Amino acid sequence: MSLTTVKDALDIILNNTQDFGTEIIDFEKSLGRVLKENIVADRDFPPFNRVSMDGIAINSEAFKNGQTCFKIEGIQAAGDAQKTLKDSNNCLEAMTGAVLPKNTDAVVQYELLKIENGIATLQTDAIKDFQNIHKKGLDRKQGDILIKQNTKISAAEIGVFATVGKTQVKVAKQPKVMIISTGNELVEVAEKPADFQIRRSNVFTLVAHLNNLNIDAKTAHIQDDKEILIQKIETYLNEFDVLLFSGAVSKGKLDFIPEVLNNLGVKKLFHRVKQRPGKPFWFGKKGTKTVFAFPGNPVSTYVSCLKYFYPWHQKSVGLNLENENKAILAEDFYFKPDLTYFLQVTLKNIEGKLMAIPVSGKGSGDLANLVDADAFLELPDDKSNFTKGEIFPIITYR
Amino acid sequence: MSLTTVKDALDIILNNTQDFGTEIIDFEKSLGRVLKENIVADRDFPPFNRVSMDGIAINSEAFKNGQTCFKIEGIQAAGDAQKTLKDSNNCLEAMTGAVLPKNTDAVVQYELLKIENGIATLQTDAIKDFQNIHKKGLDRKQGDILIKQNTKISAAEIGVFATVGKTQVKVAKQPKVMIISTGNELVEVAEKPADFQIRRSNVFTLVAHLNNLNIDAKTAHIQDDKEILIQKIETYLNEFDVLLFSGAVSKGKLDFIPEVLNNLGVKKLFHRVKQRPGKPFWFGKKGTKTVFAFPGNPVSTYVSCLKYFYPWHQKSVGLNLENENKAILAEDFYFKPDLTYFLQVTLKNIEGKLMAIPVSGKGSGDLANLVDADAFLELPDDKSNFTKGEIFPIITYR
Repeated sequence: MSLTTVKDALDIILNNTQDFGTEIIDFEKSLGRVLKENIVADRDFPPFNRVSMDGIAINSEAFKNGQTCFKIEGIQAAGDAQKTLKDSNNCLEAMTGAVLPKNTDAVVQYELLKIENGIATLQTDAIKDFQNIHKKGLDRKQGDILIKQNTKISAAEIGVFATVGKTQVKVAKQPKVMIISTGNELVEVAEKPADFQIRRSNVFTLVAHLNNLNIDAKTAHIQDDKEILIQKIETYLNEFDVLLFSGAVSKGKLDFIPEVLNNLGVKKLFHRVKQRPGKPFWFGKKGTKTVFAFPGNPVSTYVSCLKYFYPWHQKSVGLNLENENKAILAEDFYFKPDLTYFLQVTLKNIEGKLMAIPVSGKGSGDLANLVDADAFLELPDDKSNFTKGEIFPIITYR
Repeated sequence: MSLTTVKDALDIILNNTQDFGTEIIDFEKSLGRVLKENIVADRDFPPFNRVSMDGIAINSEAFKNGQTCFKIEGIQAAGDAQKTLKDSNNCLEAMTGAVLPKNTDAVVQYELLKIENGIATLQTDAIKDFQNIHKKGLDRKQGDILIKQNTKISAAEIGVFATVGKTQVKVAKQPKVMIISTGNELVEVAEKPADFQIRRSNVFTLVAHLNNLNIDAKTAHIQDDKEILIQKIETYLNEFDVLLFSGAVSKGKLDFIPEVLNNLGVKKLFHRVKQRPGKPFWFGKKGTKTVFAFPGNPVSTYVSCLKYFYPWHQKSVGLNLENENKAILAEDFYFKPDLTYFLQVTLKNIEGKLMAIPVSGKGSGDLANLVDADAFLELPDDKSNFTKGEIFPIITYR
């Protein structure tokens, strides 16, 4: 059976993304979600000529006429309605964040003043028009688009939502995802396994991977029994948008997943990818339902989710797929098979360069080894000798 | 009043970190937290000689004696108790993840077999001892430390917890944080501000920044009234470990925070830092209570939290402070004042190099500008001309 290249596999997956619609949520809960509306300035920013230093507001004509001492008429504090300087030869103390008082056009900061007996005396020879004033509408005009839709929401966007009064925002709805383990050798985390058993772990790493995308996935375990598999998977296909499997996609006698999915009408789009780890990866679709069936080895499942599910999700919710990140191989490395190799590495930022240092592991079963690494360097399938200093795509997970 | 340098300010902050103890939580909820115990292998990994390819398990003596056809005695599936190959000249089919059957020491994968009428015939001339067998204890030995304490928990660690049966894990307890805005010009997000008012936004960006550290912070607003400030802040100092303020730390007539904190016995460790934005930043401590009083301009608060609170928190919970990340300035830049400048930039990974491209903004009041950037490049205070290609520390927020 011929293998699909990594590039073709990813292309097929990205040609099968899915729009899951939108929902309205509280802006305070929107961190990490993808915005699905343009956010528009509800008024000018700043909304008024805003004092940007603490000091006195004056009418600069008085200064131009040679005046250096100003009687203080009062205070314009932040949060006060706009006051008026009554006598152009006087001044008002004005605080950062306050509206610039009427009949004034410059603010002189306290650092350049001496104040005694209600008189402020300038300690400077130069005053510019509108100095220390953040002019109305300078940053943004009412009606300007402040945030475009399809932006991933960070703390910065949350601040803008608050500023324009968007208590609720429209975001991309998340797919409903079911993560399914199979394999009679697996027992629950709380159980003590017999000598020939191991605990379930892949579903939990997948849940964590999806948590990082703000998806709350469900999990299930199904024994290696074809009838039960058919019955349960049929139910899950009805209830969920995406099924992620871990295991039972290779050549074993009990590797029923491809057959069962086929029986249920899920169309195989590829099976077996020219990569290590994760060669037996199966991907298919039934109507609007998408099935990623990852191989059961822990490292295979782990890297395949990052390499394939992540970009599928990003494109599905409307994000531009980020520019491919790359890193620089820090040591010579040799890998003979004619497969794309996902090399486990630690990443170091050395003077602005991302250096990828190989971590030696014991193969795709060695889950503990993932703890010692930060990322996978994607080494192409068309060569065996990889030389220190060469640059390859990097998939990070910390 | 003399300014504290950015380096001294950070040193003082890092000399005033705080251990908040530990707590036990479900492993499934531990993503992003900091582990506070060593995680030890409860048995060898793999826990048995594990078949790593689907195929047949044979006794290699038979092969060495020239045998190439093996009668299939049965199947050793994953999850079966260990079987025994009865006749050394026969074989057992053996599945990935299964225990290696007794009386066998090599697995030949299906790809190298022809199976007809219950007889498997080898299509290969070479069989190595223990081929396709992941030997018991090869990855890790019982009692080995798999994860060291003070590790930040990613999906990889979650998988290891599951594997060793750690349903609950000990993690660093988070500080209780109260985020307080002041300023009579501020109204709630849901309100329509008058011409001279603006909505509260800094507390929400701070909440989001802290969410990224897995801290659920509370928020409050206090009017610019010295008596009310004293009364409320006293209560918060009793109830919380950390107070974050935004605003009222500069030279304005209503900038009561430094005075109020002093009255309440919070010891000032510095006030005013040689930086832009964020010069009026005030930091102090009272017993085990820590107070970060950031300036009220949105960009000042935003960058100060990332530059100062983040490393304070990381050291407090026991993380090694990561190697300082750096990026490469992509365009010449000029900044005259004798201050460390936090330049807003977008980051691009170009062939493994992190390039920082300046984003022109309108100063520290321009919150919307944060939306157009990804990071701050920290330009030192001892020069004014920054040249394309020079390397500086980078603070990212996406």
